[in-house]
Amino acid sequence: MKVAKFGGTSVASGSQIKKVGNIITADPDRKVIVVSAPGKRFEDDIKTTDLLIALDAQVQTGNKYADAFNSVIERFAEIADTLECGRKELVYFQEALEELCTSKVYSNEHRSDCLKACGEDFNARLIAAYLQHLGLDATYMNPKEAGLVLSDEPGNARVQQETFKNLNKLKEHEGILVIPGFFGYSREGHLVTFPRGGSDITGAIVAAGVQATLYENFTDVDSVYAANPKVVNTPRKIDKLTYKEMRELSYAGFSVFHDEALMPAFHAGIPVCIKNTNNPSSEGTLIVAQRDYEISPVVGIASDEGFASIYVSKYLMNREVGFGRKLLQILEDEQLSYEHIPSGIDDISIILREKQLTGEKEQRIMDKIHSELSVDTITVERGLALIMVVGEGMTRTIGVAAKATAAFAMAKVNIEMINQGSSEVSLMFGVKEKDVSKAVSALYNEYFGEHPFLEDKLKLETVKPVQ
Amino acid sequence: MKVAKFGGTSVASGSQIKKVGNIITADPDRKVIVVSAPGKRFEDDIKTTDLLIALDAQVQTGNKYADAFNSVIERFAEIADTLECGRKELVYFQEALEELCTSKVYSNEHRSDCLKACGEDFNARLIAAYLQHLGLDATYMNPKEAGLVLSDEPGNARVQQETFKNLNKLKEHEGILVIPGFFGYSREGHLVTFPRGGSDITGAIVAAGVQATLYENFTDVDSVYAANPKVVNTPRKIDKLTYKEMRELSYAGFSVFHDEALMPAFHAGIPVCIKNTNNPSSEGTLIVAQRDYEISPVVGIASDEGFASIYVSKYLMNREVGFGRKLLQILEDEQLSYEHIPSGIDDISIILREKQLTGEKEQRIMDKIHSELSVDTITVERGLALIMVVGEGMTRTIGVAAKATAAFAMAKVNIEMINQGSSEVSLMFGVKEKDVSKAVSALYNEYFGEHPFLEDKLKLETVKPVQ
Repeated sequence: MKVAKFGGTSVASGSQIKKVGNIITADPDRKVIVVSAPGKRFEDDIKTTDLLIALDAQVQTGNKYADAFNSVIERFAEIADTLECGRKELVYFQEALEELCTSKVYSNEHRSDCLKACGEDFNARLIAAYLQHLGLDATYMNPKEAGLVLSDEPGNARVQQETFKNLNKLKEHEGILVIPGFFGYSREGHLVTFPRGGSDITGAIVAAGVQATLYENFTDVDSVYAANPKVVNTPRKIDKLTYKEMRELSYAGFSVFHDEALMPAFHAGIPVCIKNTNNPSSEGTLIVAQRDYEISPVVGIASDEGFASIYVSKYLMNREVGFGRKLLQILEDEQLSYEHIPSGIDDISIILREKQLTGEKEQRIMDKIHSELSVDTITVERGLALIMVVGEGMTRTIGVAAKATAAFAMAKVNIEMINQGSSEVSLMFGVKEKDVSKAVSALYNEYFGEHPFLEDKLKLETVKPVQ
Repeated sequence: MKVAKFGGTSVASGSQIKKVGNIITADPDRKVIVVSAPGKRFEDDIKTTDLLIALDAQVQTGNKYADAFNSVIERFAEIADTLECGRKELVYFQEALEELCTSKVYSNEHRSDCLKACGEDFNARLIAAYLQHLGLDATYMNPKEAGLVLSDEPGNARVQQETFKNLNKLKEHEGILVIPGFFGYSREGHLVTFPRGGSDITGAIVAAGVQATLYENFTDVDSVYAANPKVVNTPRKIDKLTYKEMRELSYAGFSVFHDEALMPAFHAGIPVCIKNTNNPSSEGTLIVAQRDYEISPVVGIASDEGFASIYVSKYLMNREVGFGRKLLQILEDEQLSYEHIPSGIDDISIILREKQLTGEKEQRIMDKIHSELSVDTITVERGLALIMVVGEGMTRTIGVAAKATAAFAMAKVNIEMINQGSSEVSLMFGVKEKDVSKAVSALYNEYFGEHPFLEDKLKLETVKPVQ
């Protein structure tokens, strides 16, 4: 039994949904379908969820909402039109949406969640109708009926443990189930949504619940690539990668989806396949718990911008028991989370996401560090980027770091930071933001290109695992 | 005015002291001489300070101490004999030592300090007598008379600020002053000693106090070398290095002297020269505040063994504000100081000196980390070594890391850790202890050898300093 989740662009229009119909028809094992709200059909299009958020804003402020209301309905009407079915559903959408806009609510946050969830809910109903129209035994199933129990936190709900047991019963269902993503119900019966992008979460939870043989995540790219296609020209596809590798790549800006969304599937040991609705014959990328790795262990190179570093130096710092702890306490008091802490003998740098560090917080932190830790110097540097070279077995392979640093040197990029020593599957570099593209291209060439700089001189070699 | 300090081997015997006499005679600018106690004359010899410590042990326990007493006196008698002077001094040594062994004392710790200090004190008196014997205008000066005021912490005294003003008056002295190293007097008038190796500290304090043009530190090596001569065959001499470079090299096992001993001189901006008593015509190594650096910025490669790492992983660690701080708190509660903290997304390693981590402490820490931080895994690895590649301007030179990592790869050494990003003058690697020599040799070859691996392919290039 496979669970297939279709993302926003895969279900953005009637013609896209026809592709989805073909995909479902092609494999009778695709028994549980999780769908997003209609996404963008073209670059400047507006996602249905954003139309609903705009409607909610009008309703909350007591303004006229007819235009916003109609935009939503028209969007679904157009889909129904193309699919040549769903008339009955459209009548329901009109009534249900009107009801949500006018009735009394438990809280404004809960109303927002109810309105936002309409995108997925209406789409699931339409898609179920379309599959029936194709002659398939398909049924819309509401998350309440499916048993998707979430914490009562509108916009930020988390799955409750009983959900998995509830969902397990869906295994007995004969036909195809179409379940809207993104929302569930609290124990008190309120509709609540996941954070945005939450259809991925629903899919992963359902896959875990029914113990699927595979969780297929249909999107609009053929696969996960070894580097960002905007930086590297036609980067190679990744056929297979591990959960850990996916997590490291996602951390540094691989935006196919947020890896944490997939965690319920990962925890249940269910393989995940990233596939393209627009090119379903492409194999896609399979994400698994373990993969074989041999001589070329690097699978991908990711990068993310927007980091800053706080550099602190103090003579004899390394003798001062508690220095690092006190420094982290100062950050914690300002609610800042750090990413990495490279250190010398008498100095330490804190790498953190720049957007957290407002000018005001920066000043307060500088003052506190000066007054509480009597340091010699503090400097703040912004505009840093992190680059991750990722692959299982990397840190046990001789020569991986040599290839990476040679690539930086050939690209004439100065390395501001190197962090290796904890993660077994990645090697991290810090560079100035202006150098990111150059560096990623050079790294790509070194690991995957036809003429790597060190190729003829250096052979990679795997060492025995640590006992 | 130069301050010259002579270490234990330089003043270990009469024949060595004759060399010291020649050195002092050769340069009339050498006006203040600081001396150690007689050190080892041959590999299995016992240092005078250790003879005195043995004598102290006998006295403290109330045992017969005649043999231990005589060993000390004989040592100085032999020196006097070779120098053909110092009869009067020997009589004084006998009386003074007897007095220390028998009289009532302020505290046992203070008596220990008084006894230990005899090595330097007697030697300074003998050397002054010998210089007079050579016809020089030389005078022994006791640290009390010189104004060396220390905190009243026997065996661990620290210099008090008034010392520098007191010492400044010595500038007015016409002839040569011979001052014993290692000890001074508390404000209460008690003799107290520095931590061991403290003659270097005395020399540096005196050099700062008299505002010397140069602090010459005479030892038994021609210079500081770019790598450990036990690992690399005839490594190149370092002509000049900066205080910072010296400190980083010392940290990782460069044992010419402990860099902290030189701090008073560094703080006063006084250049320090490491020279060889046995080969005074050799230029030695000059340690300065700043040096020019250009294309080949690496000055030396040091390594130190005896490190351990505590590896901790927990899913979503990077989201948990306060995780790192709590982890460091657990270490601090056990009085452990850490060296470095490389981190991944969901994992963090703590590198610390292994000897601190007793089996008992390790167990307590593991238990606390498990119970207080609910981590997924903890592992402890011992037998790690750190290798430091040191040089001003290094981190702003493209290609330095590439050369280093290529060297590791060619030596087939796996890199367990890389730490770059805070210190501007070093790049640090962690390897298994068994791999240290191989790695250091390969690094040396890459930076200083005739046929570096990357030579023909890669040019080092300095980038502009950060604004």
